[in-house]
Amino acid sequence: MSKATKFVNKDGPFRFKEGGSLPAVTVAYETWGELAANRDNAVMILTGLSPDAHAASSELDPSEGWWEPIVGPGRPIDTDRHFVICVNSLGSCKGSTGPSSTNPETRQPWRLAFPVLTIEDIAAAAQLVIEHLGIERLQALVGPSMGGMSCLAWLQQNPLGARHFLAISTAAAAEPFAISIRSLQREAIVTDPAWAEGGYSDDEWPIKGMRIARKLGMISYRSAVEWRDRFGRQKQDKYEPRLFGMNFAIESYLEAAADRFIGQFDPACYLYLSRVMDWFDAAEGFDSLAQALAPIALESNLTIGVSTDVLWPSHQQIALTAALAENGVRSRYLELPSVQGHDAFLVDYDRFCPAIEAYFTSIEE
Amino acid sequence: MSKATKFVNKDGPFRFKEGGSLPAVTVAYETWGELAANRDNAVMILTGLSPDAHAASSELDPSEGWWEPIVGPGRPIDTDRHFVICVNSLGSCKGSTGPSSTNPETRQPWRLAFPVLTIEDIAAAAQLVIEHLGIERLQALVGPSMGGMSCLAWLQQNPLGARHFLAISTAAAAEPFAISIRSLQREAIVTDPAWAEGGYSDDEWPIKGMRIARKLGMISYRSAVEWRDRFGRQKQDKYEPRLFGMNFAIESYLEAAADRFIGQFDPACYLYLSRVMDWFDAAEGFDSLAQALAPIALESNLTIGVSTDVLWPSHQQIALTAALAENGVRSRYLELPSVQGHDAFLVDYDRFCPAIEAYFTSIEE
Repeated sequence: MSKATKFVNKDGPFRFKEGGSLPAVTVAYETWGELAANRDNAVMILTGLSPDAHAASSELDPSEGWWEPIVGPGRPIDTDRHFVICVNSLGSCKGSTGPSSTNPETRQPWRLAFPVLTIEDIAAAAQLVIEHLGIERLQALVGPSMGGMSCLAWLQQNPLGARHFLAISTAAAAEPFAISIRSLQREAIVTDPAWAEGGYSDDEWPIKGMRIARKLGMISYRSAVEWRDRFGRQKQDKYEPRLFGMNFAIESYLEAAADRFIGQFDPACYLYLSRVMDWFDAAEGFDSLAQALAPIALESNLTIGVSTDVLWPSHQQIALTAALAENGVRSRYLELPSVQGHDAFLVDYDRFCPAIEAYFTSIEE
Repeated sequence: MSKATKFVNKDGPFRFKEGGSLPAVTVAYETWGELAANRDNAVMILTGLSPDAHAASSELDPSEGWWEPIVGPGRPIDTDRHFVICVNSLGSCKGSTGPSSTNPETRQPWRLAFPVLTIEDIAAAAQLVIEHLGIERLQALVGPSMGGMSCLAWLQQNPLGARHFLAISTAAAAEPFAISIRSLQREAIVTDPAWAEGGYSDDEWPIKGMRIARKLGMISYRSAVEWRDRFGRQKQDKYEPRLFGMNFAIESYLEAAADRFIGQFDPACYLYLSRVMDWFDAAEGFDSLAQALAPIALESNLTIGVSTDVLWPSHQQIALTAALAENGVRSRYLELPSVQGHDAFLVDYDRFCPAIEAYFTSIEE
């Protein structure tokens, strides 16, 4: 955990959307910059599945954050001007309460006894941070990937809560292709015997299943175009060749990505967080997405999509922009031609930095 | 096995490209129509990974074949005019010798003692059938998917062997995206404890791994566009919901596809055949694909691609057509706008039947 991480502890039952409750929850977050006296410069970032709250370095923790080139003094989300808050999702294993947290009654991890989690619960937990900080209205809300879903749910819960909204490579609901990928990732984990119906020991995680899940993740996060240019049919010599695998550079790239992930992210937390994205549907119970978002009193929105993103395809960002625009929000869609697919917001800073900087400049004019 | 299946048995060692040999091999095939007196009307079909030789029904076996609407009397590949041969790939478990065949010395299946298999070996085994039938030159060679690779290898081995070549949703070599998918499918199988390093019992196949492999296959064979229209966010009630899965129609669709596959296809055969597609590179050892294909004396080629195919993307078919055209072959690329991705040649007959029929009409003019 980063030394810069702060925590909000909520005592008394936290009730989950699908039923069940926890006696108390902790939400981890990190902040940069100073909250203005009139509290009008707060920016909240909600994250994708795996990041913690350490989006960027600071004096308290000079280690590089997961969005280092975006957040900081003089950077696109400028911590000299904004009070930036990044919240670790409820259900994660990076500081906020999740299935890997200890059940105070049993002194064991919650695991499958953790209530069914939804995007709406993650949003409600983020609001605990905002209330704790005494913020009435955010200047901006920022959500890439799953974080964009959490932002939408938060806006549905707090329709007057933010003035501006930057949505990145996200969607109002998952389509079947994305569901199929995530469902198969979860199947790989729960069919690993080491999963043991959630009873895995700390010494033996279902790493074979996690490895497959992470590799399938990478396959869906990047793009065939990027890999064709980057790896082609290049052979690899980083790992010993295996029976039926590990001949090509693309295979060692995926293996290295899996190596970095497994052991870092609790399997039960991964399963809980993966499922929330399949289940979320901002338009559920409404006639249209526009109707579902109608109460939200945003001044502006920028939604950024990437042409090579197969997991969160750009037509979903276009639909989100259109629904907000239909409600009178000054909403704009920007498509970036990055080759890195869904992951572009984490790697293609040459394109993302100026786009995000321009939006943040525009909301202050 | 179909009653219509015939067999060529080759005694004496069959040597594999990467080394090793078998004391004898059997190649399964099926034929339709009559070979003309001058033997000029033979059409050979080489198949994708999983099909057997039963491409179409016949008097001997009236059951529907895997390419029923394409092959038969009056059909696009017209068995009233052509003598059609479909060959089951060497390495398969559908009649030709493969890793599931019995090693005569041990009376056990070969499994991992089967020599390393390549596309070139599959092509050489297909040639055993052609020699057995006394055919000097094929009127046409037809290869969808992996079968197209086998056709290319066969043409490299038999540069004067065919007059016309219909290539469908295939490539001269795999790109890293396709390799990543297949490598991960194989990883899912070999990390299933029931795989037992190839020592799985007949009662306990690595079906959990095979299930993941098949589902990942389907994800890569179809398209997100098809699924969006066909399934959307529809729920399912065919299977009991599971922990972290089986809520959506797309999940039950994949489950049913896996149910049909596992138990049908030997895991070791699957692994061997999957790998051949990663390894094949028609241009290996040459400066260009055109140079590699230069000796091939085809009169014409039609290469069909599908715009939504992510596994064998259409730029690969375009490159193949260009390489053949560079060598003076009357070569044409046809892109079909099917939504079914790589699988379109097996399901979108409204588009494939007229396209194939027109090509076969053209080669007789």
